[in-house]
Amino acid sequence: MRERGRIPTTGASGSRARYPARTARPDRSRRPSGQHIGSAAGERESPVVLYGWHTVSAALCNPVRRVRRLWATENAVRRLAEAGISLSVAPELVRPDDLAARLPPDAVHQGLLAEADPLPAGAVEDLDSGIVLALDQITDPHNVGAIVRTAAAFGVTAIVTTARHSPEATGVLAKSASGGLEAVPLVTVTNLARGLAALKESGFLLVGLAGDGDVDLAAAELAAPLALVLGAEGKGLRQLTRSTCDLTARLDLPGALKSLNVSNAAALALYIATTRLRGS
Amino acid sequence: MRERGRIPTTGASGSRARYPARTARPDRSRRPSGQHIGSAAGERESPVVLYGWHTVSAALCNPVRRVRRLWATENAVRRLAEAGISLSVAPELVRPDDLAARLPPDAVHQGLLAEADPLPAGAVEDLDSGIVLALDQITDPHNVGAIVRTAAAFGVTAIVTTARHSPEATGVLAKSASGGLEAVPLVTVTNLARGLAALKESGFLLVGLAGDGDVDLAAAELAAPLALVLGAEGKGLRQLTRSTCDLTARLDLPGALKSLNVSNAAALALYIATTRLRGS
Repeated sequence: MRERGRIPTTGASGSRARYPARTARPDRSRRPSGQHIGSAAGERESPVVLYGWHTVSAALCNPVRRVRRLWATENAVRRLAEAGISLSVAPELVRPDDLAARLPPDAVHQGLLAEADPLPAGAVEDLDSGIVLALDQITDPHNVGAIVRTAAAFGVTAIVTTARHSPEATGVLAKSASGGLEAVPLVTVTNLARGLAALKESGFLLVGLAGDGDVDLAAAELAAPLALVLGAEGKGLRQLTRSTCDLTARLDLPGALKSLNVSNAAALALYIATTRLRGS
Repeated sequence: MRERGRIPTTGASGSRARYPARTARPDRSRRPSGQHIGSAAGERESPVVLYGWHTVSAALCNPVRRVRRLWATENAVRRLAEAGISLSVAPELVRPDDLAARLPPDAVHQGLLAEADPLPAGAVEDLDSGIVLALDQITDPHNVGAIVRTAAAFGVTAIVTTARHSPEATGVLAKSASGGLEAVPLVTVTNLARGLAALKESGFLLVGLAGDGDVDLAAAELAAPLALVLGAEGKGLRQLTRSTCDLTARLDLPGALKSLNVSNAAALALYIATTRLRGS
């Protein structure tokens, strides 16, 4: 067993460079105009923060993900060994409280915290099959994380997001994605309408989800490759996004409330599309 | 226009009784063993905290919900008037910052904050039709709120929860429910297995959702009245809950990840059940 890793206390000089400190560096996924997801930018990017069992263990199992540093409790190290997960970086042993002190108050770290490189970003022009989700300025990292997780469960080809007005693939988003970030590529575009045009060029049918959509998604004529376009709660799809879609579809709901949490809407849309495309 | 309401500053004597202060009274929905949802207990209950446009406006439109106090910005008062929503209590005018200062940092209040009585609780024995959701110690208020919202969108008859290990129907839960609390009764039971037994007695088919369930829910033989039983993420259904169910069902997913956020799972289960029961 290695020595218990020394963690600089909050405010110690150099703590930012060595540890994702809560005070010094709040969860960047909450910064609405923060760095974009899976950036293809040339400059060397700052690491992303990953915590929680599913999130960190999936990152460790992903050969494409470079984990720079790993802080873990003894229990977590044992659990990783029991799960047969080999560590690409030597873990720095810490106590649970040390991790809790460095993360947001609600963060459930389950004994694991890592700093890793962002995953390499793909290009929207390379997408040519399956189902793609496109997110039109959905800013809440919990929601985007849950969407990533559900997309991974449905085998979505990729998630297209805008460089601005999207949370980073780190922190809360990564935790909510529960390992899904390692399974679904995030593709960032500067301009969503142009990104959608590129998908259309590649043969995708573009279906925008909207409460006042033209047709119930369950009755819509769908075809693969398919891009499902989701807007932010409240705002919905922006006008240009909407007009770029081939059709708009709604989710007809039998109850009193007529809108869903956006990740719940994404789950239903993916279920309906997957089932319909399989059946056709 | 009334005078701008005076809000006691944090720490002022008596502030707790007059205003839902963040410091003095943190969001009670995060207290895992806190007061239960829709309590039928005899003692006079403390008020619940409601904020956000959908949550507060739905409460104001619900004749059964008694709103004790309402703090609102001038914009929000105007918007309520434009929406034709009559106020059962005179609003106390405040600035947006006043509201923000009294709520959790992430809270999106949209100019509205209310203190209200909890809704009257029903009895599990009175349920006899439609689809009921039963939640087995799901503690995250965001998730339970999203489930309430989705349940309201699907016209669920009621949500059955346990008195302990469930978040209160206030604060974050109420905000995430986006008005759904006013549409779906929450029924609290002391013991979930006994509550499920009461549902079975009333003719409900009890279907527990589990990753290793006996059958794919989409292929399961379903019948109304139907109770869908959901466990907490990670823990799943407790053994006694599971053995009380008539059958367990899984959600077969085509992708790499095999589990969903619990509110996403609830949305899919409700969609499948609603569609199947309508078709049968």
